[in-house]
Amino acid sequence: MPKYGFLGLGIMGQAMAANLVKAGYDVTVWNRTADKCEPLLALGAMKAQTPAEVMAACDICFAMVSDPAAALDLCFAGQGVLEGMKEGKAYVDISTVDAETAIAIDKAVRARGGRYLEAPVSGSKKPAEDGTLVFLCGGDEELYREASPALEIMGKALFHLGEVGSGARMKLVVNMTMGTMMNALGEGLALAGKTGLDAETLLQVFSQGAIDNPMFSMKGPLMARGEYPTAFPLKHMQKDMRLALQLGEQAEQPLPVAAAANAQFIKAKRQGGADSDFSAVFDVIR
Amino acid sequence: MPKYGFLGLGIMGQAMAANLVKAGYDVTVWNRTADKCEPLLALGAMKAQTPAEVMAACDICFAMVSDPAAALDLCFAGQGVLEGMKEGKAYVDISTVDAETAIAIDKAVRARGGRYLEAPVSGSKKPAEDGTLVFLCGGDEELYREASPALEIMGKALFHLGEVGSGARMKLVVNMTMGTMMNALGEGLALAGKTGLDAETLLQVFSQGAIDNPMFSMKGPLMARGEYPTAFPLKHMQKDMRLALQLGEQAEQPLPVAAAANAQFIKAKRQGGADSDFSAVFDVIR
Amino acid sequence: MPKYGFLGLGIMGQAMAANLVKAGYDVTVWNRTADKCEPLLALGAMKAQTPAEVMAACDICFAMVSDPAAALDLCFAGQGVLEGMKEGKAYVDISTVDAETAIAIDKAVRARGGRYLEAPVSGSKKPAEDGTLVFLCGGDEELYREASPALEIMGKALFHLGEVGSGARMKLVVNMTMGTMMNALGEGLALAGKTGLDAETLLQVFSQGAIDNPMFSMKGPLMARGEYPTAFPLKHMQKDMRLALQLGEQAEQPLPVAAAANAQFIKAKRQGGADSDFSAVFDVIR
Amino acid sequence: MPKYGFLGLGIMGQAMAANLVKAGYDVTVWNRTADKCEPLLALGAMKAQTPAEVMAACDICFAMVSDPAAALDLCFAGQGVLEGMKEGKAYVDISTVDAETAIAIDKAVRARGGRYLEAPVSGSKKPAEDGTLVFLCGGDEELYREASPALEIMGKALFHLGEVGSGARMKLVVNMTMGTMMNALGEGLALAGKTGLDAETLLQVFSQGAIDNPMFSMKGPLMARGEYPTAFPLKHMQKDMRLALQLGEQAEQPLPVAAAANAQFIKAKRQGGADSDFSAVFDVIR
Repeated sequence: MPKYGFLGLGIMGQAMAANLVKAGYDVTVWNRTADKCEPLLALGAMKAQTPAEVMAACDICFAMVSDPAAALDLCFAGQGVLEGMKEGKAYVDISTVDAETAIAIDKAVRARGGRYLEAPVSGSKKPAEDGTLVFLCGGDEELYREASPALEIMGKALFHLGEVGSGARMKLVVNMTMGTMMNALGEGLALAGKTGLDAETLLQVFSQGAIDNPMFSMKGPLMARGEYPTAFPLKHMQKDMRLALQLGEQAEQPLPVAAAANAQFIKAKRQGGADSDFSAVFDVIR
Repeated sequence: MPKYGFLGLGIMGQAMAANLVKAGYDVTVWNRTADKCEPLLALGAMKAQTPAEVMAACDICFAMVSDPAAALDLCFAGQGVLEGMKEGKAYVDISTVDAETAIAIDKAVRARGGRYLEAPVSGSKKPAEDGTLVFLCGGDEELYREASPALEIMGKALFHLGEVGSGARMKLVVNMTMGTMMNALGEGLALAGKTGLDAETLLQVFSQGAIDNPMFSMKGPLMARGEYPTAFPLKHMQKDMRLALQLGEQAEQPLPVAAAANAQFIKAKRQGGADSDFSAVFDVIR
Repeated sequence: MPKYGFLGLGIMGQAMAANLVKAGYDVTVWNRTADKCEPLLALGAMKAQTPAEVMAACDICFAMVSDPAAALDLCFAGQGVLEGMKEGKAYVDISTVDAETAIAIDKAVRARGGRYLEAPVSGSKKPAEDGTLVFLCGGDEELYREASPALEIMGKALFHLGEVGSGARMKLVVNMTMGTMMNALGEGLALAGKTGLDAETLLQVFSQGAIDNPMFSMKGPLMARGEYPTAFPLKHMQKDMRLALQLGEQAEQPLPVAAAANAQFIKAKRQGGADSDFSAVFDVIR
Repeated sequence: MPKYGFLGLGIMGQAMAANLVKAGYDVTVWNRTADKCEPLLALGAMKAQTPAEVMAACDICFAMVSDPAAALDLCFAGQGVLEGMKEGKAYVDISTVDAETAIAIDKAVRARGGRYLEAPVSGSKKPAEDGTLVFLCGGDEELYREASPALEIMGKALFHLGEVGSGARMKLVVNMTMGTMMNALGEGLALAGKTGLDAETLLQVFSQGAIDNPMFSMKGPLMARGEYPTAFPLKHMQKDMRLALQLGEQAEQPLPVAAAANAQFIKAKRQGGADSDFSAVFDVIR
């Protein structure tokens, strides 16, 4: 039975690491602010003083931090992951980073003799707690197989998509599609509202047909009331749409509908919606 | 137990009337080309020579024809519905027509002392056979309640949306939303394809997340293979998007994302995709 | 020397008819509110009591009214143009109407033995006074040649574009192009403003380059100050863009950029800009 | 009378430097491939072996190279501009570079005690020969005044827009506006063509109205014939539109119409039009 490490115990990481510990695995944890380790220690996890120590103590180390800068710091800083990296060790980064960041970390890890897998997730707090995340992996296939038992505890579905960077790209494609769909929902609700049709009824009709989907069911009723409790911040959605459009430009793939949706997200940001849920784009549509 | 009539025995009408007959109701049928009545007579339906005769023979008459012109003809032509209309009779038009057509028929029916309900459906051949259509009704509420037992045999969900015309409008809102979502799917598939991600895998990822919906699951794999077997013709989707955009203009509701999607459907029509399934818009996206 | 008639003495018609009279022509005028005839009678025009009387008194009768309904009324109502129409008479309608209206009038005029030319203008009050309008004609070519001396007094350029209806279509194409260009100007001004560049300077740079045009020079400085004195009302521009987009749909010509511009005009209408100049779209851009 | 230097003798630089020499100034030139210096030496210019030598020989050195990489190389490489830079010397970079590049060069020049002005131009080969370029300057205002006599020989208009980087931004705003206008022209021509209106006539109508501009007059007739001789390559226009849209995102300025235009340029690039003139976007519109 492999020994695991876990770096980064924010809302997501906390829940994921807890699921690993509860499943009976030997898990060593670390977090920048050490008190976040307490709930995990109570469950039976061990604690280390630095990322390098975690790396030294385990076979496969997972990491879940907030952005590319934090992911690079975790890896390259003094007493970071690289200092504990050597042959036989593996690093699985669950953080959402761009393809360039993933490639840089992969290169550095391999230069030390280790192995690397990018594994960004689709899903937020609730799926992390329930162990129903979706992992979008790219990189070392052997490591993917070795890490699968742990990933299957934390998630309900795993995908190996290709070389390092393909996980990051997949996530952009998914979020771009979601962003356009949110505009489709918003324009539908707005047109219904302006022509005397009831929003709740429209959502019920949607739920009976071919376009029935969880996002419409969950967010639609809140949007109809002008409520946008933040699950995925609008500024992050807009950033992902921008990156997807840039990816499209590089690949010479025109994306006129996503471009129109992106213009709406930019407008929503300007009008103060950056930190609201991305469904707050409805306020600039209607 | 009320006596029913059914006018128009195309693919959809055939299946719907059959469900009524099988449920044990007394149903009198008529179709422009009379031989289409045979399967229903075999099930136990009765046959009439004209729409007026059907109207005379029943309490509530259903109609399902292909477009506004056919719906107007059925009602206003010699030996048409109006000739058999009188107090105590009711007419439920399931055909998809614009609000103006529905309003004109309603007015004429009421002038004869009868009652009218527009009841366009969401769903195509399979749901008609399975009795799982969704009825989007507008008009006389009492008639809506009286017709509900029959509608519930033919469908899985009924909605009463308001005055005559609101059923037509609801259908436009739903189809507009569906048309934009089809572009979201197409752009996602195209961007994945251009950046080395596998289409099948993308569809699996979609199916695990918040935007999972039957349309993506059913049409996505076919689109990835460049196949567009016609369930809902692209030219009809484009027409509905046009009408929805016009509705938006009247209501001063800008719909920039739907407008971008509509431009793609127009392009697809121009390139010969008018009679393909509306998913064939993928050929102009990728 | 032919005798002319002139129906409709609003801001535009008043100025156009005055130019004909000043050029020494024999002109009989009529207007719904008769006192609008006074300034022309002072210049030497004659007055008639009805459109039919004008038609009887002249060889070629011009008309300039505000919309299709008024143009149809002028022609078909009692004591209207048709009552005075016969062989040897000609009718030149300068009003902006849709192709269907122009075709209906043409048919009725020809049925009486007369001849018809549609001749909508590009240009507003000032060009009407200065005799620098642009005539976009469609229909009878011989009549076009016969009417040219009069049109050349009222305008600086004449075009014969084809059959009846082609003048109306040309006007839509021109206005659609203008509407998109107004959005190009607005987005340029907005981006400059948000990135610390001076609007006046941007307009000077435009004026030195390949895209220098009178509209940017005239409207740009006003827009930069948030002023939109009405020369061409926004609601009319939005209507023309809608009609152009519909024309595109019929011709299977996608117009994605014009569609995006139209969405902005709709938004501007909703926010209260319907009667402002069409440059007021800037208020929803910035 | 100040001594001038000129680095980079491509199509543009050749013509600009020649205008300086012909005006009687003392000009020292350099070009990577030395034979390009010959025509200028014949006119009376002097030749240097390296950029550093040019810098040493003159008071104000102009540079005109093709892209940011070449501009950085010219400045920072061995025997480059910086090696000859010292107090009393000035460097005016006419090359089109992004704001970041301009800022980096400015910083390095000032660290050596020198002064820097970014001065990208609007205009291509013909205006360079005729001395009718437009200079969009940013940076040292005193240097702007000192360099003005030379710039006025090479151009017809000079603008000082603010700090270093504002010249680059102004160029993006102008090119974005131009790119949208090209789509307006293309959609107008396409709609005319599909509805039986003559392209040449449409262009004549444009030329009589408020949107008359040199770009429509020069490119329109060629586009109508499907000819796109390269004056400004489509790939550069698409790049500038992308950068302008990014600038808009940073400034939270939505640009939906430019975004729609950009999608068309991307499509044109994909279909093989990258090196054609940017007017070749017409091939994906019609």
